Amino acid sequence: MNFTSDNSAPASPEILDALIAANKGPQAAYGEDDYTRAATAALRAVFETNCEVAFVATGTAANSLALAQVTPSWGGIFCHPQAHINTNECAAPEAFCHGAKIITVPGDFAKMTGDGLTASLARYPRGPIHTVQPAAMSLSQATESGTIYSVDEIATLADMAHAAGMKVHMDGARFANAIAALNVSPAEMTWRAGVDVLCLGATKGGALACEAVIFFDPALARDFGFRRKQSGHVVSKGRWFGAQMTAWLQDELWLRLARHANAQSRLLADGLAGIPGVRIPWPVQTNEVFAILPQKLDAALRAAGASYYFWPTQGLVPAQAPVNGEVFVRMITSFATTEAEIAQFLQVCRAI
Amino acid sequence: MNFTSDNSAPASPEILDALIAANKGPQAAYGEDDYTRAATAALRAVFETNCEVAFVATGTAANSLALAQVTPSWGGIFCHPQAHINTNECAAPEAFCHGAKIITVPGDFAKMTGDGLTASLARYPRGPIHTVQPAAMSLSQATESGTIYSVDEIATLADMAHAAGMKVHMDGARFANAIAALNVSPAEMTWRAGVDVLCLGATKGGALACEAVIFFDPALARDFGFRRKQSGHVVSKGRWFGAQMTAWLQDELWLRLARHANAQSRLLADGLAGIPGVRIPWPVQTNEVFAILPQKLDAALRAAGASYYFWPTQGLVPAQAPVNGEVFVRMITSFATTEAEIAQFLQVCRAI
Amino acid sequence: MNFTSDNSAPASPEILDALIAANKGPQAAYGEDDYTRAATAALRAVFETNCEVAFVATGTAANSLALAQVTPSWGGIFCHPQAHINTNECAAPEAFCHGAKIITVPGDFAKMTGDGLTASLARYPRGPIHTVQPAAMSLSQATESGTIYSVDEIATLADMAHAAGMKVHMDGARFANAIAALNVSPAEMTWRAGVDVLCLGATKGGALACEAVIFFDPALARDFGFRRKQSGHVVSKGRWFGAQMTAWLQDELWLRLARHANAQSRLLADGLAGIPGVRIPWPVQTNEVFAILPQKLDAALRAAGASYYFWPTQGLVPAQAPVNGEVFVRMITSFATTEAEIAQFLQVCRAI
Amino acid sequence: MNFTSDNSAPASPEILDALIAANKGPQAAYGEDDYTRAATAALRAVFETNCEVAFVATGTAANSLALAQVTPSWGGIFCHPQAHINTNECAAPEAFCHGAKIITVPGDFAKMTGDGLTASLARYPRGPIHTVQPAAMSLSQATESGTIYSVDEIATLADMAHAAGMKVHMDGARFANAIAALNVSPAEMTWRAGVDVLCLGATKGGALACEAVIFFDPALARDFGFRRKQSGHVVSKGRWFGAQMTAWLQDELWLRLARHANAQSRLLADGLAGIPGVRIPWPVQTNEVFAILPQKLDAALRAAGASYYFWPTQGLVPAQAPVNGEVFVRMITSFATTEAEIAQFLQVCRAI
Repeated sequence: MNFTSDNSAPASPEILDALIAANKGPQAAYGEDDYTRAATAALRAVFETNCEVAFVATGTAANSLALAQVTPSWGGIFCHPQAHINTNECAAPEAFCHGAKIITVPGDFAKMTGDGLTASLARYPRGPIHTVQPAAMSLSQATESGTIYSVDEIATLADMAHAAGMKVHMDGARFANAIAALNVSPAEMTWRAGVDVLCLGATKGGALACEAVIFFDPALARDFGFRRKQSGHVVSKGRWFGAQMTAWLQDELWLRLARHANAQSRLLADGLAGIPGVRIPWPVQTNEVFAILPQKLDAALRAAGASYYFWPTQGLVPAQAPVNGEVFVRMITSFATTEAEIAQFLQVCRAI
Repeated sequence: MNFTSDNSAPASPEILDALIAANKGPQAAYGEDDYTRAATAALRAVFETNCEVAFVATGTAANSLALAQVTPSWGGIFCHPQAHINTNECAAPEAFCHGAKIITVPGDFAKMTGDGLTASLARYPRGPIHTVQPAAMSLSQATESGTIYSVDEIATLADMAHAAGMKVHMDGARFANAIAALNVSPAEMTWRAGVDVLCLGATKGGALACEAVIFFDPALARDFGFRRKQSGHVVSKGRWFGAQMTAWLQDELWLRLARHANAQSRLLADGLAGIPGVRIPWPVQTNEVFAILPQKLDAALRAAGASYYFWPTQGLVPAQAPVNGEVFVRMITSFATTEAEIAQFLQVCRAI
Repeated sequence: MNFTSDNSAPASPEILDALIAANKGPQAAYGEDDYTRAATAALRAVFETNCEVAFVATGTAANSLALAQVTPSWGGIFCHPQAHINTNECAAPEAFCHGAKIITVPGDFAKMTGDGLTASLARYPRGPIHTVQPAAMSLSQATESGTIYSVDEIATLADMAHAAGMKVHMDGARFANAIAALNVSPAEMTWRAGVDVLCLGATKGGALACEAVIFFDPALARDFGFRRKQSGHVVSKGRWFGAQMTAWLQDELWLRLARHANAQSRLLADGLAGIPGVRIPWPVQTNEVFAILPQKLDAALRAAGASYYFWPTQGLVPAQAPVNGEVFVRMITSFATTEAEIAQFLQVCRAI
Repeated sequence: MNFTSDNSAPASPEILDALIAANKGPQAAYGEDDYTRAATAALRAVFETNCEVAFVATGTAANSLALAQVTPSWGGIFCHPQAHINTNECAAPEAFCHGAKIITVPGDFAKMTGDGLTASLARYPRGPIHTVQPAAMSLSQATESGTIYSVDEIATLADMAHAAGMKVHMDGARFANAIAALNVSPAEMTWRAGVDVLCLGATKGGALACEAVIFFDPALARDFGFRRKQSGHVVSKGRWFGAQMTAWLQDELWLRLARHANAQSRLLADGLAGIPGVRIPWPVQTNEVFAILPQKLDAALRAAGASYYFWPTQGLVPAQAPVNGEVFVRMITSFATTEAEIAQFLQVCRAI
């Protein structure tokens, strides 16, 4: 009953099998190997376009490198206050950009709104040297609240961003969960909707450590190899990234794992909905369940061995916020979560 | 007969077995897991001291993070011109230090000399704001020419560096090969000789991707976690690093693999010594063989399927440099190199 | 009737006279000259402490260099949303810190409150590597709204900042105006109240271009000379800074000029208070007058040759904000503003 | 008899007169003033092209900002080992470029040679991510040894640099002295010969503090205003820069001052040539005299009140280097040096 993070899970067996299979014979170093080539080809097939691809070991590196590619040191990066790049990356994007400024765009459920973007942009006119210049809009899909943008919402925001002279970045640490939920094609949810660069995370979705930075316009990837090398993110035995990504994409493993994770959150949320005193503050759309629990229930669950995080409540509107005697928690399910765990968890809830 | 790099090799089977064993159940993310803890304990045992340890995926990241920890943007980093940080890391150390300057120190066979260090230091007096200030001395053990510093040589250089107000960094991408060659303890070759921070590479020595940054004075590691996170080098599923390093150190696997690699270079060099027209320009001490080959031999070897790199000849003294009709090459052996490959290679040589 | 900025004014005649007097004979370069020494001594006398002093040409440089001295790339800088470092320096503090993050602290009239600081600090716990760490609190005295902190308010905030492990920075672009308004000693308003580093601006107060970075604890200035040199802020003919600052401080010229500037704003505000339809949204405490004007009056003033800026109204509470038919403007008076200009301005107002 | 630096001199009276004349009435801040516009127009006239111009207070800032405009963090900057950017700017170019690497190009008398450039470029092939990429060639005119490149030499090096995909930067801290010596037009010595960006220093040539960054291709100056602002190099009262530069250019004041400075070095060198035991190691072409003096003469000169710097002798060929009993010194003359000073100096020499 560990619901702390999809990062707490191991790798899926298929991924490990692929590593074992790749562990033979010499391969060219620094990403010039056969496995990296195969993974790149697989991504191009999945995204139906001749994108430029590079692999790195962490989501923070992927996001920061991608943003630095499109943001000068005097650039502004527009995103929701809850965006991982704003709250949990220790100012890595700012460091990779050698300055820059993250400018927040409000909206419910961790999703930026068009009106919010318009208002935020108004404070950063193009031209005057005294303020940073709009450079990138970053949206998380799925969001840090487990919600998702529709394809139309992405397209609308992307159009606005482009009109303002910005590039569009998508933090896809849980991209697979969003695709599984929306049931659209990867192309539809990205470049056809206006996304310029995607950070596609496989780690949370079942890999050991594998994130792809995908530039849909190859011209945007100019000199990216140097940027990646200089930040120490070119591994010497590139086959490990290639093997992971290839296996993850093969036979839709990534979608099967994501559907499973989403389904567990669905089960969990549905079960919690029937527990007296429990409130679900916003729609459960992917593999994250946020819940307001009575303290007594929280204590019982933890006593029974369940683990999950208390979550910050700043900025929550009253209807979504805990009151005295309640706690606000986040539970994440992964490819490794079992229905038995969910059942056990709900049994504890019902026994109160 | 692939002698291009020890990076071209796969991982040793023991390392993969450890990954498989670690692939079960939830673990805390971001390096707070049991495997990372075990690996840290293993390193402390091997180095006989309560060092601070952090794991990253690449040698460039390890070196650059370590150097940035002890070098301000106005600092000078003293190293041999052939040092990997100077020649092959795309100015990553400079970027991580936000400026800084690499200052070269001459010496034969890729090893700095004390006289060379004195001369280089003389150009950077302490105090005047117009020049960078001596901050770090970096030595590679083994060097980029496959040679090694004796413990006394390390101690002498380290004393000089400390006297000049610098910290001592060791690039240990091939640390295991050096230990195997010198037959001294890791403690003797590092902190007891004055090394302040070591980048210990397991990747070239049989891991998938695992480098440890080891601060022998824990005070020197202050805030290192933030530096590492901000550069995108904290992987979420830390267990993979922990499992690799633990397996690599267990039962002296690292030394056995290094001894094997060194022995293959020994075999190769001894065999080449008997080939007419072949010259070995400097002592073969670890797992790298540099050789001057007749062009005809080189052509025959490549035709037979051997691969290795032509190597730059700038700065070579005439006695070590190729003349017309000769090529200068580098051959690297690894844990995965077989005696059969060496025998096959030498057979081609002898057949000319 | 130019009230756009105190930057639009020339230099006071006494400053120019000092430059002329200093323009003779050789002087050591790069700040080792007699005039720089004299200015440093004068500042130590004025601040009654053995502070470390360095001169630069711009307020942005002064603020950014000072903040970088106390803020690592993973540090957070806490300030009011209206702070110049947040709104008008093109992310220079972030760039000088190689990352960092400006975290805003709310409060009325451009002044942070203790409660606001507590709330903002709560989002940045010390320890976890995922978020920036509190490093500096920056307060502007006078503020960007022309208001001032009392000595007690400064001391309270500084105590909180120190308790949170932060250093206290004061942006004193209009320090003289604040001193003139509060009628306290420079020592009382700075280091005795807990300020660690002050950026004292003479430019807006009557100099050509002269800002002093003053570290009250000399230990905090360690290596600052290198930081300043590396950013290109060590002028070769240092005498010009020294002569300006010495003249500015001599015989309390700085206070006389500031009192004059403040008095003109007082005259202006008092006059405006009697004009029907004009509202002054917050107390006029130094040399800035913010006013809500009927559009018709604004048009008449501009037609008569008056100049001043329209000012952003984001974040204003309704009582302080313009409604339809009104404009929100900022008017700044300087040492060069004449009573005749104020009278002429008010005459236009009264003639409507 | 102060020959330490042209930075030790005051400003020429004409420059101060211009400041006094500019000290009246309001002007727009941040370089939008009439004086800055006039100076820009004057520079365009002098250089006979529609260049983009920005003013900063120091040569280090000018060079670093110009280089950062054309050099990514993974770029290489090629220059002579004696270049000021390599020896005396505390790694400011590297810091402004966020990394980068200065690569030295050998040559006599502080001048790069074409062969030297070819050899240095050979070590940095375009493409591989492991090494920095050629980005800029920087030449100093006049050089740090007081020598000058002919227009043909500049054009040859610039052609090579362009062919290698680099931009050409000229450090013109003593540009006026070079023009005065070569007697060519500013356009001939810069953009017509292939220079892309010039840092034109007026400070050493008679101003207080005024350096112009001049982009001959306006497209190269894209976003330069943000870069300059973010580094704290946009002064608020821009009129001071504008007034200095306008006065410096007016009626060829800059050339008259430079011719005077050069002539004094000529007088000094000619006089020294007749002193027994004195050697002049290379041609005196502008306003710097390097000399090898008998220690006894040096002592007598200093006793008589003369001042000048001992100069590093590393890298000097034996014919140009001092032996036992000799010292190696640099003497600089400026617009403020008088013939009487030279005569007095030579009198001391002759009296030995």
